[in-house]
Amino acid sequence: MRNATTRLLTRADLSTLISAHGADTLMGDMIAAIETAFVSFDEAKCTVPVRSGFSYTAPRPGLVEWMPILRQSDHVTLKMVGYHPENPGWANLPTIQSMVGRWDTDTGRLVAICEGGLLTALRTGAASSVASKALAKADASTLGLIGAGAQAVTQLHALSQVFDLSCVLIHDSQPAHAASFPSRVAGRLKAGVRIETSSTQRMLAEADIICTATTVAPGDGPLFSSAADAKAHLHVNAIGADFPGKTELPLDLMQSAFVVPDFTEQAIREGECQQLRRDEIGMDLTALLQRPGLQAQLHSARTVFDSTGFALEDDAALSLILDLAGHYDIGSEIEMETPGLDVLNPYDAAEPTASSTSPLKLDTLP
Amino acid sequence: MRNATTRLLTRADLSTLISAHGADTLMGDMIAAIETAFVSFDEAKCTVPVRSGFSYTAPRPGLVEWMPILRQSDHVTLKMVGYHPENPGWANLPTIQSMVGRWDTDTGRLVAICEGGLLTALRTGAASSVASKALAKADASTLGLIGAGAQAVTQLHALSQVFDLSCVLIHDSQPAHAASFPSRVAGRLKAGVRIETSSTQRMLAEADIICTATTVAPGDGPLFSSAADAKAHLHVNAIGADFPGKTELPLDLMQSAFVVPDFTEQAIREGECQQLRRDEIGMDLTALLQRPGLQAQLHSARTVFDSTGFALEDDAALSLILDLAGHYDIGSEIEMETPGLDVLNPYDAAEPTASSTSPLKLDTLP
Repeated sequence: MRNATTRLLTRADLSTLISAHGADTLMGDMIAAIETAFVSFDEAKCTVPVRSGFSYTAPRPGLVEWMPILRQSDHVTLKMVGYHPENPGWANLPTIQSMVGRWDTDTGRLVAICEGGLLTALRTGAASSVASKALAKADASTLGLIGAGAQAVTQLHALSQVFDLSCVLIHDSQPAHAASFPSRVAGRLKAGVRIETSSTQRMLAEADIICTATTVAPGDGPLFSSAADAKAHLHVNAIGADFPGKTELPLDLMQSAFVVPDFTEQAIREGECQQLRRDEIGMDLTALLQRPGLQAQLHSARTVFDSTGFALEDDAALSLILDLAGHYDIGSEIEMETPGLDVLNPYDAAEPTASSTSPLKLDTLP
Repeated sequence: MRNATTRLLTRADLSTLISAHGADTLMGDMIAAIETAFVSFDEAKCTVPVRSGFSYTAPRPGLVEWMPILRQSDHVTLKMVGYHPENPGWANLPTIQSMVGRWDTDTGRLVAICEGGLLTALRTGAASSVASKALAKADASTLGLIGAGAQAVTQLHALSQVFDLSCVLIHDSQPAHAASFPSRVAGRLKAGVRIETSSTQRMLAEADIICTATTVAPGDGPLFSSAADAKAHLHVNAIGADFPGKTELPLDLMQSAFVVPDFTEQAIREGECQQLRRDEIGMDLTALLQRPGLQAQLHSARTVFDSTGFALEDDAALSLILDLAGHYDIGSEIEMETPGLDVLNPYDAAEPTASSTSPLKLDTLP
């Protein structure tokens, strides 16, 4: 009899895992896992379709997408991810709601289910860190954050592990979000890092690295009109653009920068690369990570990481989390299947006499 | 605070539900639910993409697919379904492994997770019953089953609710499966129904209705060479063809029959309709159910229901099961999210001091 249980990791389990392993250690491990996933990405062994989904405007604007990946001869990971920008306002729920599942390819069995919102925040931060290490000045010290929501927390946390930051400039269209940001990153930064609210104009003039992670509506971008005043070596991690029509960056920045998508085919449809011709796009992150000489040249150039969100990252993040959950014995096991049933009989284990008892009439149901 | 829990229905919960509601009553309700779903299907309110998936031959032949459906302004249902025909032989697991999830479109929250193998067997049987009521002779009494596995059990159960069967002829390439079939349907049939093993030749000569539900490999079909000897009014429910290259029926049957797919676009890619030109396909089941006059004419004609498996059915089946589970208070509630957290802080609820304790080194992990 094979193990027939499914590992369930809720958000509470992930909080326990962070407490057990340490948030800094976890982010460090996540950065390493994401970097390894990009460096070793091999299309012959790993299939990643461009994600699909449903978008709608009623009852509220939102979308639900599925992001599948096949690791050949091993497993399938699929993340279901909802993006509902009005969630924090009316439902006290995060903008991103998500579940990640994993199925083995031996039998198609569901191996694990994991809350995906926290995983998404961790892996998106880690991916920016990997891209920024490759593209930004090594002595970058001023970080700008446009959008001070949940994603900004892990962007800052991940970047602070790679850069010796002294100043963080934040801008959010909702002042309350900017105001609460410092308390949300307390304990994630070394002592002495200044956090200041800022106009985008000041941020552009001073920042070495900028992360954009907003809920700007499709068609309402960009977040600032021009990058004319930005530093020559500015590196931008563009997180928010992940839907047709949604972009955060001005065209002059995109056209003057070396642009690195996480997943080019998807970035052309949904990311900042929607604004570019194919020949204006640099190369994807996997290709860049294989060229250390080029990275060194790009440190002094304007660069953009077009982070649309890549199933490869979700898969690597889930593998890390499952390893750690196993080590610390966190989470629970649920029995989706009942072991030992007759596999040829869908009714096995149901009481055979039940249909002779007085059944509920369906029309009495609520 | 909105309800933040997810209803979990395992296979054991579904067995409890069948026992509580009665297998016959449940199948009757399922047939009604599936019929209503087809009759009321409206592409303006309900979006169903053709399913996608990964197929592979290593380590064993199999595929994992996702089948999404959007009920506008209400919910998304997505079924993950694995098809691994070698499962019963080496892993003592059903061929079909599946999980169905539901997400609300208000917030993207995961509302329910349900074991999908039993649901698939129930809804596939129910769909054949709906199609057969529309297409087969009302006094059909001899049913043939090619393939006596798990799907055959619910095919027979569902059809026995609509037709007054007196004889069931079964054929399976694995004699042990045919031999165990009667014990697996005991209690699902009225007294006096004969069940006999049969050659496909005899079955073709005698059956009023045939259901094909085999694991024939792509390229290895058809299951019989010609329908020349079949009754003029034969109706076939073709269940097995659900993958490019996999077909069960001979071309002469397909070309001489009025062919009704569950979902035409998908049937052309994956179903028996792969064998046909578009103008050789009759109409889909939704269209047929709106034409009672045509149905009456077709009762005396050869007909094929090309059942590739339609997300509309999964959605309707899940709605019924969730209603019943709520009524009988079956299943459990899991908290994927932790209510009351700061929605802008991914690290909320993790111990803030944890990262100062001595963390595990990742390289010590198994």
